[in-house]
Amino acid sequence: MKFVKTLSVAGALAALPTFALAQDTAAPGFDEIGPYIMTTLLFLVAGFLVFFMAAGFAMLEAGLVRGKNVAMQLTKNIALFGIASIMYWLVGFNLMYPGEFNGFLGPIFGTTTWLEPVGLDAADASLEYASVASDFFFQLMFVAATASIVSGALAERIKLWPFLAFLAILTGILYPISGSWQWGGGWLSTLGCVEGSDAPCGFSDFAGSTVVHSVGGWAALAGAIVLGPRIGKYKDGKTIPMPGSNLALATLGTFILWLGWFGFNGGSQLAAGTVGDITDIGRIFANTNMAAAAGAVAALILTQLLYKKVDLTMVLNGALAGLVSITAGPLDPTLLGALWIGAVGGAIVVFAVPMLDKFKIDDVVGAIPVHLLAGIWGTVAVVFYTEGTSIVTQLTGVLAYGVFTFVVSLVLWFVLKAVVGIRVSEEAEINGLDKAELGMEAYPEFSNG
Amino acid sequence: MKFVKTLSVAGALAALPTFALAQDTAAPGFDEIGPYIMTTLLFLVAGFLVFFMAAGFAMLEAGLVRGKNVAMQLTKNIALFGIASIMYWLVGFNLMYPGEFNGFLGPIFGTTTWLEPVGLDAADASLEYASVASDFFFQLMFVAATASIVSGALAERIKLWPFLAFLAILTGILYPISGSWQWGGGWLSTLGCVEGSDAPCGFSDFAGSTVVHSVGGWAALAGAIVLGPRIGKYKDGKTIPMPGSNLALATLGTFILWLGWFGFNGGSQLAAGTVGDITDIGRIFANTNMAAAAGAVAALILTQLLYKKVDLTMVLNGALAGLVSITAGPLDPTLLGALWIGAVGGAIVVFAVPMLDKFKIDDVVGAIPVHLLAGIWGTVAVVFYTEGTSIVTQLTGVLAYGVFTFVVSLVLWFVLKAVVGIRVSEEAEINGLDKAELGMEAYPEFSNG
Amino acid sequence: MKFVKTLSVAGALAALPTFALAQDTAAPGFDEIGPYIMTTLLFLVAGFLVFFMAAGFAMLEAGLVRGKNVAMQLTKNIALFGIASIMYWLVGFNLMYPGEFNGFLGPIFGTTTWLEPVGLDAADASLEYASVASDFFFQLMFVAATASIVSGALAERIKLWPFLAFLAILTGILYPISGSWQWGGGWLSTLGCVEGSDAPCGFSDFAGSTVVHSVGGWAALAGAIVLGPRIGKYKDGKTIPMPGSNLALATLGTFILWLGWFGFNGGSQLAAGTVGDITDIGRIFANTNMAAAAGAVAALILTQLLYKKVDLTMVLNGALAGLVSITAGPLDPTLLGALWIGAVGGAIVVFAVPMLDKFKIDDVVGAIPVHLLAGIWGTVAVVFYTEGTSIVTQLTGVLAYGVFTFVVSLVLWFVLKAVVGIRVSEEAEINGLDKAELGMEAYPEFSNG
Repeated sequence: MKFVKTLSVAGALAALPTFALAQDTAAPGFDEIGPYIMTTLLFLVAGFLVFFMAAGFAMLEAGLVRGKNVAMQLTKNIALFGIASIMYWLVGFNLMYPGEFNGFLGPIFGTTTWLEPVGLDAADASLEYASVASDFFFQLMFVAATASIVSGALAERIKLWPFLAFLAILTGILYPISGSWQWGGGWLSTLGCVEGSDAPCGFSDFAGSTVVHSVGGWAALAGAIVLGPRIGKYKDGKTIPMPGSNLALATLGTFILWLGWFGFNGGSQLAAGTVGDITDIGRIFANTNMAAAAGAVAALILTQLLYKKVDLTMVLNGALAGLVSITAGPLDPTLLGALWIGAVGGAIVVFAVPMLDKFKIDDVVGAIPVHLLAGIWGTVAVVFYTEGTSIVTQLTGVLAYGVFTFVVSLVLWFVLKAVVGIRVSEEAEINGLDKAELGMEAYPEFSNG
Repeated sequence: MKFVKTLSVAGALAALPTFALAQDTAAPGFDEIGPYIMTTLLFLVAGFLVFFMAAGFAMLEAGLVRGKNVAMQLTKNIALFGIASIMYWLVGFNLMYPGEFNGFLGPIFGTTTWLEPVGLDAADASLEYASVASDFFFQLMFVAATASIVSGALAERIKLWPFLAFLAILTGILYPISGSWQWGGGWLSTLGCVEGSDAPCGFSDFAGSTVVHSVGGWAALAGAIVLGPRIGKYKDGKTIPMPGSNLALATLGTFILWLGWFGFNGGSQLAAGTVGDITDIGRIFANTNMAAAAGAVAALILTQLLYKKVDLTMVLNGALAGLVSITAGPLDPTLLGALWIGAVGGAIVVFAVPMLDKFKIDDVVGAIPVHLLAGIWGTVAVVFYTEGTSIVTQLTGVLAYGVFTFVVSLVLWFVLKAVVGIRVSEEAEINGLDKAELGMEAYPEFSNG
Repeated sequence: MKFVKTLSVAGALAALPTFALAQDTAAPGFDEIGPYIMTTLLFLVAGFLVFFMAAGFAMLEAGLVRGKNVAMQLTKNIALFGIASIMYWLVGFNLMYPGEFNGFLGPIFGTTTWLEPVGLDAADASLEYASVASDFFFQLMFVAATASIVSGALAERIKLWPFLAFLAILTGILYPISGSWQWGGGWLSTLGCVEGSDAPCGFSDFAGSTVVHSVGGWAALAGAIVLGPRIGKYKDGKTIPMPGSNLALATLGTFILWLGWFGFNGGSQLAAGTVGDITDIGRIFANTNMAAAAGAVAALILTQLLYKKVDLTMVLNGALAGLVSITAGPLDPTLLGALWIGAVGGAIVVFAVPMLDKFKIDDVVGAIPVHLLAGIWGTVAVVFYTEGTSIVTQLTGVLAYGVFTFVVSLVLWFVLKAVVGIRVSEEAEINGLDKAELGMEAYPEFSNG
């Protein structure tokens, strides 16, 4: 705006040409670049929050397994994050957004195919969106979250390397393929849309109750079935409790996940440079927090009523289930809506955990109720508050992701089982994976292992 | 500014009408919306930092209680956050800012009474401020912090449900009422103001040394008195030390609280869209860090001098006391000012902890010295650096919050004690609340409980 | 732009004078202040992320020392942060950036010499940069990180106060002096530059592989040599493993450090208000994450191949080494470049840890391989991707920092050893520093100490 300063009452008209000229050569102002900068910033801030969820999953799972398996669970969590980061860059991102980037193998040749050059000029930027680098960073954290969901359910008995092999395929290929159906502009995103009409249509999953959480849950369910329960978990029709070794870490993990979820859902607005977008993100933060609070309180009250004693692990999983439940539609509900949607999620966990045990499906940390069942619930609940969504379309999406992920995962787990074996020896399982597989313990001085 | 591009030397005048026209229909530029977006972003970022303080309090308290009560302390911390989130939405927020929102019962009918609609149009936004949703999110985290302060002091002996009942009233009604005196534009905020004069006046508490921390401290003190000390804590005039079970968690909690405090104090600038505001936030961050550092170092040196041995828990509480001390006025002091204000806060803790024991007031984690006493100190210290503040007005505020919160809390605790009882059985206390009340342990494999 | 709204087809010309007038008195728009606000915001957000690394170091070190020394390690970590905060304000910042601020003793007289006044007017701000307060806050966190590096290597045997005395000098004087060579615009920053030519030149260390990490590593190495190994660590040519007491905390610490590194490297862009800058930060985030992932996976695979068993502590240090390796040049490499640079860093750790033991240098947490060796590697690796860098200049910088920091540190450690002694008594070391020096334990109920 400097040119205006040259204007004066007398010189106003004379100045006009030069000020027009000045503009022609001027760099774009904040009106043009502001939205790009704010949205890129959103991806970076939301991205580091979602990154931190990796620590949340690691602490939650380390706290809910027995002491003799903690070091292995920690190893799996950091290893899977590293592998997810590499696989999603190597093939996943291009596979998931094929329209946007040039070719499957692009990244292998240095990623310059889609990563912006250093010191990008505003004139070369997609000013109506954001930096692809920041978008990649943000998307990457979602696939890592999907992978973390699997590790908890299969804890305390799966071999390290076959587990990592499965996750390499899940994060590099499965998640990106199914993710592209919705977020890559695929068939689900336009399901039920009428040519020429601009009525709202398509499958609706704002931040991934289905695309992320159910997918992780389905892969975990398939693994839990092929793997079988831990030794001694189910004995003559009874379920033997195997309490977690460190509920302080499990609680810390839950709070970290709750924190990360503000980035998970808020960042999924995918824009922050307008009044409407930033205000929507405010709504999303408030709703996300309310759903988590409601899920925790629902589990608190229900476990008191059902068992006459509050169950901390249920309260933790209730909060997480509330978060998963609101993830498909964190923007449109009122706070009252977020409250009851989250509360139902918390209730689902309380009832589903014993139910899974009935089927002898041994899910060590409760990942299947929290991420799969609450994820399905959240995807369905979208129809209550989001205009133009249809229950049929939502269920079609849920089913599509379920069938694809569950069937392919089942096949993969069976192949891994047949070829290399996925389960540690009985002796290793009894002595604990830490000593047997790693040769180190998480708490060498304290454990009674 | 696109219209300017259409200008040319020849067409300058002819173009003027169209360019005026273009402007009339154009969306507001960043000059108009920038401050709204930046301030909303401030509430969201500061809000998630303050949210994380819930994890900090949980870890601090879990680390400072004995192993047999850890799971219960964790349960209380996540439960109180959930309840605070619901109560503050249900009644608290409207009660605290009655001028701004339409009516006490608004939220019950879906919160649309004050939450912005999805996709808010810039023309409908309060561009001179920020998104109400983000403001609510930020304010909510403050009430949750207040609640967390109470849980630490009453640990290891209070019953879960009466404790939660008290917190529902504190977070839904007490804190909002007293908070409105200052932050809701109530009588304290204009105390001593002269009609027509624009000289600075009113009670001054920038981020809540009194409004948040002292209030939590007063409620905790009332509870500690009614509840009485833990069994065996005071024996024939001697204070029996009951060391915390996990100082690593306590230290982690302290660092997390320290981190969250940047949001707590920085976000209380309530604006980030001008050079003055963002620069002030920088000052606040630097001062907040300095006060915490000084509080820690003061406790480090004092415990060495007084006891010939450094006391880690004192150093942790010293850092927290430094943070509480600077919270009433984190903007105006120089870094030297922040240093000595924080150092005095740290010293208060070192001297007050044994003093409380003299009175047989059993404050398990030191919440009363840290939040109540350092909070009072910080509120008084404001007069040294903030123009137009008066010691009389500051003390009036301190007294008003003290009398109201302490008296009402005392009554509530007595009522709860009389009606349902607030203390666990002697047997339950000796065996630990985890086994007795929850039927689970935080560290089942390690605890000697 | 409000003035335009007053324009109308009819009044266009008549309005011009007033609109010019309006402009003359108007506050600067976002085109002028936007970059200042965004860059200041970058320093604040990146700053709190780097702050949190203090918690990461504390957890990593608390997890890798034995139970009997945990409380002392925690004490050292919070104490050193407090002392670094005070020393860097007192002398460090002015010493490091002498050109920018008026005089060595400025801060002692209240810091108003360089801290902006409250409510800074845009006209008085350095709009081409950012708030000095936010810059100071950000820089301070770097010196604290340097200090944290030292504490890990010297754990389990060094006396508290001599250790803190060394760190006061390191953070107040040594780091600022050597830091000024590069970041204060000193001789290294212009090394090999040709008068008048604007070809890229000078030592290149984007975020401090050498300036921060190697410096911390050199100081740690000097201390480890003077201090000597822990009792029983090396016995008749064999290295006796002394496993860490809590690998869950060590893993948490690693994830927190990884999180903080996005601020460490991203914030070092030192600007966020243009399309180029914010996009570069996106690149930096993606590269930083990739290098950490590659370092972790490299250590995962290598330990499996070399020892037939994965070593979790190696994987954790591998991730950290990947982060240190990319820190000298996180912007220019492609993601493929970040991958192999980080992977080499991870490999360095796997091979260097046993090598150090050969020399009987007892580095408790592996700080020397991670921060010193990977730091040197990262500084050298810059030449592969950053135009205009020369291997000679890079090695000159590495050597200069090494000689200065190592020699001065060595002298300091010897002086401290001679004057007050730096090592605890044999008895204290065997019984553990917690009981002997602090009189408290981190895990009083669990430890077998």
